Amino acid sequence: MLNRPDVAVVGAGPVGLAIAWRCAQRGLRVVVHDPAPGSGASHVAAGMLAPVAEAYFGEHELTGLLTASAARWPAFAAELTAATGLDVGYRSEGTLMVGLTADDLAEARRLWAYQQGIGLPVTPLRPSALRDREPALAPRVRGGALAATDHQVDPRRLVPALRVAAERAGATLVPVAVRSLSDVDAHVTVVAAGCGAAALTGLPVRPVKGQVVRLRAPGGGAPGFRHVIRGYADGEHVYLVPRDDGEVVVGATVEERSDTDVSAGAVLRLLRAAVDLLPELAEYDLVETLAGLRPGTPDNAPILGPLAGRPGVLAATGHHRHGIVLTPVTADLIAELVVTGATDPLLAPFTPARFATPPTVGPATDPATPAGPATSAVPAAVARLGHDPSAPEKEHTWN
Amino acid sequence: MLNRPDVAVVGAGPVGLAIAWRCAQRGLRVVVHDPAPGSGASHVAAGMLAPVAEAYFGEHELTGLLTASAARWPAFAAELTAATGLDVGYRSEGTLMVGLTADDLAEARRLWAYQQGIGLPVTPLRPSALRDREPALAPRVRGGALAATDHQVDPRRLVPALRVAAERAGATLVPVAVRSLSDVDAHVTVVAAGCGAAALTGLPVRPVKGQVVRLRAPGGGAPGFRHVIRGYADGEHVYLVPRDDGEVVVGATVEERSDTDVSAGAVLRLLRAAVDLLPELAEYDLVETLAGLRPGTPDNAPILGPLAGRPGVLAATGHHRHGIVLTPVTADLIAELVVTGATDPLLAPFTPARFATPPTVGPATDPATPAGPATSAVPAAVARLGHDPSAPEKEHTWN
Repeated sequence: MLNRPDVAVVGAGPVGLAIAWRCAQRGLRVVVHDPAPGSGASHVAAGMLAPVAEAYFGEHELTGLLTASAARWPAFAAELTAATGLDVGYRSEGTLMVGLTADDLAEARRLWAYQQGIGLPVTPLRPSALRDREPALAPRVRGGALAATDHQVDPRRLVPALRVAAERAGATLVPVAVRSLSDVDAHVTVVAAGCGAAALTGLPVRPVKGQVVRLRAPGGGAPGFRHVIRGYADGEHVYLVPRDDGEVVVGATVEERSDTDVSAGAVLRLLRAAVDLLPELAEYDLVETLAGLRPGTPDNAPILGPLAGRPGVLAATGHHRHGIVLTPVTADLIAELVVTGATDPLLAPFTPARFATPPTVGPATDPATPAGPATSAVPAAVARLGHDPSAPEKEHTWN
Repeated sequence: MLNRPDVAVVGAGPVGLAIAWRCAQRGLRVVVHDPAPGSGASHVAAGMLAPVAEAYFGEHELTGLLTASAARWPAFAAELTAATGLDVGYRSEGTLMVGLTADDLAEARRLWAYQQGIGLPVTPLRPSALRDREPALAPRVRGGALAATDHQVDPRRLVPALRVAAERAGATLVPVAVRSLSDVDAHVTVVAAGCGAAALTGLPVRPVKGQVVRLRAPGGGAPGFRHVIRGYADGEHVYLVPRDDGEVVVGATVEERSDTDVSAGAVLRLLRAAVDLLPELAEYDLVETLAGLRPGTPDNAPILGPLAGRPGVLAATGHHRHGIVLTPVTADLIAELVVTGATDPLLAPFTPARFATPPTVGPATDPATPAGPATSAVPAAVARLGHDPSAPEKEHTWN
């Protein structure tokens, strides 16, 4: 029992690895379980850090969390690079939001008005200013706006960097799949398994399919545009994310499906919208078509915090389309919760308790959750999270 | 010298393997040189056997060869299957040629009128008859015609079958690249190296890039259409080739380029035309995007026959977009030429001699072409082809 980890993280995507890193930095013994780190939604994700462009009607609390996490990204990226020597492709040129047709522009303007109304920095641009910023935009593009604080990072660089950082801080990666939480022996278990959280916890996390296409600028150069471009094009919503190495990610569909097949129609719609907005993309190489599964939730917001009725189990899942931008705040606040037992007010709206208590999946499929005595190395909060199965349920709700 | 092959074939695509098979069947010792059989244009090709739909203005002699070869295909496929037990996907439902818009239909009708005018079996169909044949066609499709004798085969099944057939008949495959014909020691060398023929012989064979997309019917079933469909869709020419196993090949661009990059614009144009003609394809899986290089020639016709000034060297290359359909006639007539020395009249228009004598690539880079005595096992024609370097040039023109 002396070697029993303080924290077991299930899932080595960005969220799980960042939590492991933060916990290990604070002196906890951490293991991360994943047979294939970074092979989930992050492998497909474009890496937009877009709390402004992603601020939608009726998602006020989520917008607050996105904004808080995006604000942490510059320091997070810098710390990660300092710890590992690895660049994660953080770029701060900002995001242009554009509309191709008059109808597209009208739809976009309704959203921009909402975003401005809640105080977010959206700057409408004259057509000439738009083209000064991105001359490659199609002449047909009717108008646009700048979200200067919406940045980007490269998820395929982020995951290896987080893994190195976590391991250097002392975390151990166990490349084995966790089929049941009863197989995990730790004082605290953090379920950061994306879509896999549903089977492990009974939480209402469902796969939301997204298809993307990856292009590459011909001749080995950088793409001919610098901003992230998000546009409506004949009613189709598309984003274009340029990378320094010449890659352009074109995404993404949002489909209530659980397969990862790439469909001809999705690729057609993405490419058509992309080329309509930025004609030079027709000359780019098509290097990858791919589908992934986002961990969606009933209210499109993540599920963060202790599971009711499951002592010692925390959820950090359900990040849906926001896993990359939410990585820093999730890691910071979940680590804080593990170490101190304190639930940051930012987390409160995202507690698992907001959903009906799941059916008794836990006891039925996970009867052997260990509850041994804490060792002296374990902070009080870790011990409490992990060792009080008889406490009243609200003790474990943490908010 | 006793083990010196009678025939060395350079290139194990369909043409080279079929020549090897035919020569081996006639008792010759045959080796085929190729480090990667079937990795050239045939790996990308759709396998349409379409002398009617591919009969274009100004290509009368080519049309004659295409027609002659297509007529040999049923027996060729049957013989190949009987020899190997392997199915090559020969299907005889015929080809529908369609036009999406009024302009597309007008363009198509001009071609159909030409094809009918030279006696080819093109049957215009009323819209109702067109839809009776293929109910999945888009309602927008304005009209079409049937080329009942234009069939199809699966090139990716053809190559392995030809390889088995050739080897069972006694041919030997040497998986090594031929950099110079001086490295080949045989009485007769047949250059069936596709685009590679240019460097080996100096013949005017150039790469003509073609991009294709491969789809697959969802759910593991067969595609929802039976004919090969060739169409004009808003000025874009596209073909759709359904396979029994659910695959649909969508092709193809024709580009004067020598790279094999897949471009976003090409995939967009192919998918748009395909979905415009057959809307259900939007729901199909996109399983492969690929570019290949066809061996093009100045007059779009193949180069078949002895090389002037290169005793013992025959060309069987430059098949451009017609390599699959031309495989049987090429194999039959080149084997006949090797064994008997007789040039079939069908071959006459396709002699290498129709192009200016290439620069002295041969003597300069290939000084060591062996010219030893024939063994008794070698037919007289093989010996003559391979052993008369001092004969007048017209001796080697064979027509």
